[in-house]
Amino acid sequence: PAMAAAPVATFLPGDGIGPEIAKSVRLVFETAGVPLQWEEHHFSPEYIDPETNSMVTRSALDSLLKNGVGLKGPMATPIGKGHRSLNLTLRKELGLYANIRPCMSIPGYKTKYDDVNLVTIRENTEGEYSGLEHEVVPGVVESLKVITEKASTRVAEYAFKYARENGRKKVTAVHKANIMKKADGLFLECCRQVAAKNPEIIFEEKIIDNCCMQLVKDPSQFDVLVMPNLYGDIVSDLCAGLVGGLGLTPSLNVGDGGIALAEAVHGTAPDIAGKDLANPTALLLSSVMLLRHMEMATLANRIESALLGTIAEGKYLTGDLGGKSTCTDFTKAVCDKI
Amino acid sequence: PAMAAAPVATFLPGDGIGPEIAKSVRLVFETAGVPLQWEEHHFSPEYIDPETNSMVTRSALDSLLKNGVGLKGPMATPIGKGHRSLNLTLRKELGLYANIRPCMSIPGYKTKYDDVNLVTIRENTEGEYSGLEHEVVPGVVESLKVITEKASTRVAEYAFKYARENGRKKVTAVHKANIMKKADGLFLECCRQVAAKNPEIIFEEKIIDNCCMQLVKDPSQFDVLVMPNLYGDIVSDLCAGLVGGLGLTPSLNVGDGGIALAEAVHGTAPDIAGKDLANPTALLLSSVMLLRHMEMATLANRIESALLGTIAEGKYLTGDLGGKSTCTDFTKAVCDKI
Ligand SMILES: CC(C)[C@H](C(=O)O)[C@@H](O)C(=O)O
Ligand SMILES: CC(C)[C@H](C(=O)O)[C@@H](O)C(=O)O
Repeated sequence: PAMAAAPVATFLPGDGIGPEIAKSVRLVFETAGVPLQWEEHHFSPEYIDPETNSMVTRSALDSLLKNGVGLKGPMATPIGKGHRSLNLTLRKELGLYANIRPCMSIPGYKTKYDDVNLVTIRENTEGEYSGLEHEVVPGVVESLKVITEKASTRVAEYAFKYARENGRKKVTAVHKANIMKKADGLFLECCRQVAAKNPEIIFEEKIIDNCCMQLVKDPSQFDVLVMPNLYGDIVSDLCAGLVGGLGLTPSLNVGDGGIALAEAVHGTAPDIAGKDLANPTALLLSSVMLLRHMEMATLANRIESALLGTIAEGKYLTGDLGGKSTCTDFTKAVCDKI
Repeated sequence: PAMAAAPVATFLPGDGIGPEIAKSVRLVFETAGVPLQWEEHHFSPEYIDPETNSMVTRSALDSLLKNGVGLKGPMATPIGKGHRSLNLTLRKELGLYANIRPCMSIPGYKTKYDDVNLVTIRENTEGEYSGLEHEVVPGVVESLKVITEKASTRVAEYAFKYARENGRKKVTAVHKANIMKKADGLFLECCRQVAAKNPEIIFEEKIIDNCCMQLVKDPSQFDVLVMPNLYGDIVSDLCAGLVGGLGLTPSLNVGDGGIALAEAVHGTAPDIAGKDLANPTALLLSSVMLLRHMEMATLANRIESALLGTIAEGKYLTGDLGGKSTCTDFTKAVCDKI
């Protein structure tokens, strides 16, 4: 059969330690023989694209829309310059309606918890992130939380589909419908309706405050969690904390037609940038999610095993994991295992 | 000098295990010789007071307003009956603008954390609890978060005053001002201004998602946390989870002119109600907060030591603490230590 051209993915390496961990991903992909071409785009706080009113350039958006898949490193949005946050611009412009963050205890990296194996699925487009706020009179501000049936049903359907396809047994809807009876009530109602169509998956409801208490008491009781935007923001960080932080947890944003943007959600770590000290784990795990999304599961599994094996072995760990290795040596160790 | 009449406090024992743990508090107070008279009020889901549109009766509110101090057990608000939540009614009608929840590792009750010693101070009147919600068009709901300069400054001032009076060194303002720039921005700005007037207290800002991650990674880095209503709801439950749950953590609501309502914030535990199996710790610790608030610190300390001593000793523990004692025996053990 004629050789298909290698698929192309957009790569946004980001700032700070971004370029270093991006290099690590590129090397690992080459070593594993991932048939993927990268199209790189860079943003700069010096350049606000007038078309997007953000550091995100029109050409990067076009690249992502054309390729349908991308990988993003950490980027700092300068605060309070009157332009749109980089993350929000990407989510909005690409219609990335669900954010998936698996969270698992990592063998070899000890925390207080050793039985975490859950996935948070966050509505990524509305809720408290509407951007609609105004000062009613001096000293009185209103901020609008917007919940729609469309977006709630869409993310609930994604959560149940994810559970089915990944052999997960339970979906928990997280809400505060006892207080926000209409807004969170609508979200919850949409989840209930989708749950009714998926009787093979257990459905459970938890109020956000109780959910956070239960998560720190016993995370093993959770499987897939689905929730509105801000709760997802909070709960996904809390869960990352249980297994060691944002340096060890991946993230994938998905939208209509299969568009997907994987991203390391940790910061740019300016203090260690350029020193070859960064840990590429979060970006690597995110790239593994992207490969699975692109139906390259075998390659994804091979890279993931090599990565987790390297951490479990504990010989070549970066400083944040208690070791003394450089990013280069850690990456080499991963490549050696592939 | 003429004997002053004993102060009077309103007592709302509540439902489920409420009456049992209320009895425990009464006995402990008698044993310690607390010069306090109780004025009891009961609510029932069968009776919605037309004046308050809630189970909270006008006469209970009047009693609380007259006495200025009260203690509340757990109460279930039946969901979706079109009347106001009991908790919200009390907070609103009594102007209880700050909710204080100290959270400390309890010697003798082991959790994954043994170094928790922090206090969450929650704005208790506005934010996401405005009750202002509407369906814009079918399937689209808006919920209003209201942040005011007045309420934000008031709770920030309370937090710094609390820190000063309780020998605490740091106040952390928790927010999401990178997204809710105007609403959370106003809250944060008010905190900054109050902080500037309290230079002897360290002031720190944390974004809510990162704050929750830090709390599960290392709660010892926190001291006093101040935040808008919903974040306070979430963070205080998360923190309670770190030390064992709502059965072990107290809560005090305060308002203008020193009005204060202490409350156990756990549930009514209908499954064990009436069986003498309930743990009165949260209500006892709450009553200790009330005594401190009433400037009966010596009595408060005596009761608290006896209570914590009983738990540390581990001979008479209720089922939730891993023991086999009844509420009566546990209470007796506390009284014996007084
Ligand atoms: C950086 C910030 C805008 C973002 C968010 O709030 O969504 C981040 O916390 C995340 O979770 O991706
Ligand atoms: C019962 C509920 C209305 C209440 C709240 O959300 O404030 C509770 O969670 C609390 O923290 O006191």
